[in-house]
This record gives sequence, structure tokens and C-alpha cells, in this order.
Amino acid sequence: MSTAEQPWAALRQRLIDAAVLAELGEPGMFALGGKFNQVFDALDDLYVHTFADLDAESWRFPPVEPKSLFEKTDYVASFPQLTGSLSVFTGDNREHAELLRVRAAGEPWEELLHPGGLMMSPAACHPLYALLTGTLPEAGRTFDVLGSCFRHEPSPDPMRMQTFRMHEFVHAGTAESAQAHRDSTAPRLVAMLESLGLEIEYVPANDPFFGRTGRIMAANQREAALKFELTTKVYQDQAGATAIGSANYHNDHFGTAFGINSADGQVAHTACLGLGMERTVLALFARHGMNISDWPQSVRSVLWKANEH
Amino acid sequence: MSTAEQPWAALRQRLIDAAVLAELGEPGMFALGGKFNQVFDALDDLYVHTFADLDAESWRFPPVEPKSLFEKTDYVASFPQLTGSLSVFTGDNREHAELLRVRAAGEPWEELLHPGGLMMSPAACHPLYALLTGTLPEAGRTFDVLGSCFRHEPSPDPMRMQTFRMHEFVHAGTAESAQAHRDSTAPRLVAMLESLGLEIEYVPANDPFFGRTGRIMAANQREAALKFELTTKVYQDQAGATAIGSANYHNDHFGTAFGINSADGQVAHTACLGLGMERTVLALFARHGMNISDWPQSVRSVLWKANEH
Repeated sequence: MSTAEQPWAALRQRLIDAAVLAELGEPGMFALGGKFNQVFDALDDLYVHTFADLDAESWRFPPVEPKSLFEKTDYVASFPQLTGSLSVFTGDNREHAELLRVRAAGEPWEELLHPGGLMMSPAACHPLYALLTGTLPEAGRTFDVLGSCFRHEPSPDPMRMQTFRMHEFVHAGTAESAQAHRDSTAPRLVAMLESLGLEIEYVPANDPFFGRTGRIMAANQREAALKFELTTKVYQDQAGATAIGSANYHNDHFGTAFGINSADGQVAHTACLGLGMERTVLALFARHGMNISDWPQSVRSVLWKANEH
Repeated sequence: MSTAEQPWAALRQRLIDAAVLAELGEPGMFALGGKFNQVFDALDDLYVHTFADLDAESWRFPPVEPKSLFEKTDYVASFPQLTGSLSVFTGDNREHAELLRVRAAGEPWEELLHPGGLMMSPAACHPLYALLTGTLPEAGRTFDVLGSCFRHEPSPDPMRMQTFRMHEFVHAGTAESAQAHRDSTAPRLVAMLESLGLEIEYVPANDPFFGRTGRIMAANQREAALKFELTTKVYQDQAGATAIGSANYHNDHFGTAFGINSADGQVAHTACLGLGMERTVLALFARHGMNISDWPQSVRSVLWKANEH
């Protein structure tokens, strides 16, 4: 199949022609247009409204996190290929002159920078765990977190951006309460997405662990039924479907890493329900077309109660 | 003055005690709490509503931009000290094993990563100019852009975060229309901020150009009256005030760099009105206290029309 015939090529072109997206010059890097942002805001409101009964504590996180926090998650051991580290300039006038000389010669001046102790945040919930060190109350705690995630996986498929927002409902508590959080919220998210006209499958999944060891970790993750994905067929002529959300039980991984205990003195267990915001918005445009005013009335009335669109 | 006596120390502690912010472990890196996000969303809505008559085209940008785009702005020539470059891992199993060995030895494993052709975006409007290459219509174009900016200036002052959102109204057109955009929007933003109970000064300013050459550039920028800042006194016992917004006339800097022409065939001139969202939210908490329900009714009714808080 040539590049032009790839299933994603036609969708990407339609999204760009309709100014839903604009290309910024690297694979997976897009500007988000007015129509995109209208749907994004409505979807985000709907998601928060759907899970209002969780009475979740809200936190928002920056796209960058301290290396000290990143290290605790052990992310680079499992996902080096997705990792982004920030380098910065700390030199003086002389070193700046040298940088400009290298740059003028067309050479990679970024190599003169040094690691800044900052990493791109790969998941919206990671910085949350740093806030939870200590002992949880009896019922555990439930959070509404949103952050911009970075994953270095350049792709021409518009469904795979290098930076994207993940909106999560996270629970920290016991093994029982964490699993109950995942298993009770996931079907409700499936129903929410189905109310928007998307066909959703809820399927066992694994993270893209790196390399030889990673294949074993992925198999273990599937065998323990820790991760499920909410997938939808964005490309009708394609065999696979695309994940737009996930429901994860982390066991005591983050509890151990960040020193979080449940009220009974055991290491806390955590779980999260995550919605990939950009992917879900694009799945809606792929499903219903580029003109929001032409979307089914049933979908528009779910997204915009006042029906102003 | 000891650290504890610095004007920012008391405010930071109050913000953290009230869970408006939480510290993430590096200077200038914060999680944003529920109260913060309530005010942020209301402020953002008010700002968009205030300038609705501009009929601006909306774009939202990711926190990362391609190096090809970053280079056109010439940012690293003027502000190397604020620049952030992303490094990524592109190795195989063997190289990953070496990375993990270096990491286990407590050495800086990020030095084994390589520049990824991606930079942290330092200003919300930079990626916009990449979308405008070509010729503008007669009246120019006006945009509503928001992005997460990174500036490497670690500081214990909560008013100086390393990542923050800037919401801008940008105009691209002629010298006359660009200056008119700046000079007509800035007083309206001053009035909007004053309606929130902030005392605002509108003062000539310069960007923090680097080094010896930078001092000359800063003086030139002031002499040409290109940049103005909207400042407010966050710390009453401090001599200086803090900038929470700015109004900038870029002359033909971005027009030349990105090949943008006005309808008359000349190089386009650009201008932007920018609101520092995090700084403005914190200025409101500093001014009115940590409990939103105790804020003056006049301020709350401007932020929340329905008065639900």
C-alpha cells in the first residue's frame, strides 16, 4: 500500500482541509483549530459531568515534571523509546557565542545544551502520586486529573500525536477499592462514548513495553488482566481499532514507588480511567464528518445541552 | 533578607496550605488545584468574551514545537537561557541495557539521549506564524491562540513558573493595523483586569535578552516602544510590580521570518496582546484571599455571571 493509500491519509487530509487541524512540520505535531476546540471543550464538560458522582478532587498538571518524580515511576526502564528529556543552556556570553557559531555552521547546536533535571510528563496521573506520599483516609481518595502527555512516537496517523491531553479519574486505596474503581467506571465511559455515536469495544490490552524484556512484561500484564482499552474503528477499511481510552489497575506499583499507604497500613493500590482527549475528538470528526452542524442531533444534544451549535 | 522573609515566601505558603497549588519538587513546577482551575476557567471565559468583537480565529498549540519552526523565530539567539530542547532515546536493546546500567550507577543517563528535533514552545503565538506563510487578506487576520509555554527560569516565586499558559489575541496585517491592534486592545485588557479588583499599570518594557548584546537589544526595544507590560503589585511590601500581561508590536520580525505578506505585497507586520493565565489567577488569589467565596461580590459577578460560587 502506498503512503497515499494508507487509511489515515484520507482522514488527515479531510481534517486539514476543514481546518480542524493544521500541520506544524513534524509528524504527530498539530495545531488544533476552532472546531476541534469546540468539540474538545464540550467533550471535557460531558466527561466531568458523567463522573460528577465520584466527587473527585481536581488537579491539573504541567507538561513537564521533575526528573526526581519521573525516576520514581521507573518509566525509562519500560518505555525508553517514548521518553523525552529537557536540555537547557546554562552558559555565559562566551558559550553563547560558541553556540551561535555552531548554529550558523548548520550543525546541531542542541548538543551543547545540558540535561535540565526536567522530563516530559508521559501520563496525566504520574505527578498526582507525588502528592499522595503518606497515609490515605479509610475510603481512599479519588481524583480528576488532566495533563498534557508527551510520547516520542512520530507517526503520520493523526490519531497518534506526540503531545496530547489525557483526562483521568484516579483512585488510590486498597486492592479492592482500586479494582472496583476501574471496573465500575469503565462501563460508564463506554456508555458515554456510545451516546456520542461511537462503536466501542472494551478489550484486554498491554502497554508498549520496550524490547525483549518488554515482551515478557506485556504478556504478564495481559495475564494479570491489569489493563483494558476502549477502542473504536476510526478507519473502517482497517483490520485493527484505535484505543481512545483505557482502564488500568496498577496494583501497588505507584503505592510502593511513592510511599503511599492505605488506612490499614498496607501499601496503597491505585487504578485509573483515562480518556485520550485528542483521539476522542478526532474519532468524532471521523465518525460524523467535518461539519459539526451536520452531526446527528442526538450527538449534538449530548455534547451541547443548550443546543447552540 | 532571609529566604523566609522574601515577599513571595508567605504567598507561596498560603497558596499551598489552601491547596490552590502543590509543589512538584523543582522550583517553578506546580500542580494546580481545584480552586485554581475554577478561577482559571472563569478568567479564560471572561477574556474570550471581552474580545469577542474581534471575531478572532481560534487555534490551540501543543507545548512542543518542531525545531524547524523554533529556528525561524531566532529565539535561541536572544534567549538561550530560557530555551528547552527535547532529547529522546532511539537505541536498541543493547543501548537500553547500557542506559539502565548508567542509571543504576546513579549517573546522568539523559546524557545518552539525542536531540529529537523538538523544542519547548516559548510563546503561544510562535506556532501561529508558521500557519500564515503566504499573503494575508486586505483586512489582515486576527487570532485567538493559547498554548503552554516553557521558560527555563527556575525561581521560588510562585509568580514565575517554568511552564505556564499564555492566551493571546494576535493580529497580522500592515504596520498600521498591527499597531492599532496593540494600542486598541491593551486598554480594554487593563479595564478587564481592573474590573477584577486588580490595580494595573501599563508601562514600557523589554524582553530579557541575553548577555552583553542583549543589553543593547533591550534598550533598542524600549526606545522603539515595541513592548508594554500590564503589571500589578502582587507583593505590597516589594518595590517592583509583576507583569501579568503584555502588548507587543513585533514590526516585521515574524513576517520576514515566516514569509508572511500583507495584501499590498509588503512584508506583514504583527502584534499580540498576551495574558499570562497562571500569573493572573495567582494575582487574584493574592489580592482577594484563598477562599473564593469570600471574594468581593463585584469580582465574583464578573467572573461568574450566574453567581454560582
